[in-house]
Amino acid sequence: MESSKIGHHISEQFNREIEDIRNKVLTMGGLVEQQITLATQAFSEGDIELAETVIKQDDQVNDLELEIDRECIEIIALRQPAAFDLRLLISVIKTITEIERVGDQAKRIAQMAIHLVDSENHNQYYELQHIVDMVSAMLHDALDAFARMNIHEVVSISKQVKNVNREYKSIVRQLITKMMEDPRKISRSLDLLWTARALERVGDHACNISEYVIYMVKGEDIRHLSTEELTQKVDL
Amino acid sequence: MESSKIGHHISEQFNREIEDIRNKVLTMGGLVEQQITLATQAFSEGDIELAETVIKQDDQVNDLELEIDRECIEIIALRQPAAFDLRLLISVIKTITEIERVGDQAKRIAQMAIHLVDSENHNQYYELQHIVDMVSAMLHDALDAFARMNIHEVVSISKQVKNVNREYKSIVRQLITKMMEDPRKISRSLDLLWTARALERVGDHACNISEYVIYMVKGEDIRHLSTEELTQKVDL
Repeated sequence: MESSKIGHHISEQFNREIEDIRNKVLTMGGLVEQQITLATQAFSEGDIELAETVIKQDDQVNDLELEIDRECIEIIALRQPAAFDLRLLISVIKTITEIERVGDQAKRIAQMAIHLVDSENHNQYYELQHIVDMVSAMLHDALDAFARMNIHEVVSISKQVKNVNREYKSIVRQLITKMMEDPRKISRSLDLLWTARALERVGDHACNISEYVIYMVKGEDIRHLSTEELTQKVDL
Repeated sequence: MESSKIGHHISEQFNREIEDIRNKVLTMGGLVEQQITLATQAFSEGDIELAETVIKQDDQVNDLELEIDRECIEIIALRQPAAFDLRLLISVIKTITEIERVGDQAKRIAQMAIHLVDSENHNQYYELQHIVDMVSAMLHDALDAFARMNIHEVVSISKQVKNVNREYKSIVRQLITKMMEDPRKISRSLDLLWTARALERVGDHACNISEYVIYMVKGEDIRHLSTEELTQKVDL
């Protein structure tokens, strides 16, 4: 009786630790989502102060990454989890690397925002509006899939990668045309290009996060599968 | 007596498993090193066949990643390693993600090589020669640091990141000047820019790999430290 109580207690403690880690991952995810929103806003409005806020937030994201990473490894060492719990912890370790890199891209966009304001005193980003909306939604859905452990969102996120890629290529084509028409626009256009590239990469990270959700829930590694193969896996 | 034999046997078996994983990581590392060499060669010589070889190798790299990943997690679940062994396995899981992404960059460079040949029938990459040499050396040193578990190489690799970044910026400046002088060169210059960017990212991945070596050997997470802080850690 006493020992089963202890067993129960240990398991509850373990559950709390896992729950605590999940919450921290969601906090970290919320933080980089906000960073992407603020960075693109800073970019479109030429708001240097806002851009600087985004850059400062990077430390917070990095600290969270190290903290969660350390806690996951401690739990693995002390509790020796198996099956689902181990997969959850390994997925978290991988997921936070992706989230941290989304934060890096936000920082990059914020730096570009500052650079654009410095160089010509007005910004516009109508060319990027669509890709911003697309990857923001992907990131949100990926973090949501992680929070709910919902693998059915993953297929649609994976399909979005192709759309983002198409949109990105269309932006590149537009910008090349602009640069050719007016070489004075080359420098500005390149800043837009880097920003589009950074946004495209955010979409890739979102897709990677969603793939780790499948691994966590189903124990299957679906990286490097085609969308068709993926749909089959999820439907099984 | 019998039980100590069994213990010994289990431990030897464990050592073999760990050694097997390390060898596979080195194989995977060797493969992407070769991919980078061949991709940049394909790029400079306009060799489409070679570029296609690099693109095909991507499957092999991906397969190795999944295989090593699976083996690491199996060992963690079955052997419940602690301290150094656990850190080694977690570092391997993180390192192979970086190696796989170096492979992605090699594939990207190979695709650019094909695109450049298609678009104008001659390539040159003298602008990129220096950055190719720099990041190839960084990648080699990082994989070597992993193989030898040598943390002293890490500081020099970390310092190289700044040099690569400087070189990259100088390439961007040169190419912008070229584009402004002759707008017909915009498309070619952009392909060179993407390639320079891909190479810069290879340097970043090499740096990340080398940081995991420190974590593995010393149990300290040194991501997000400055070079000065890093030097202190390694010297301790």
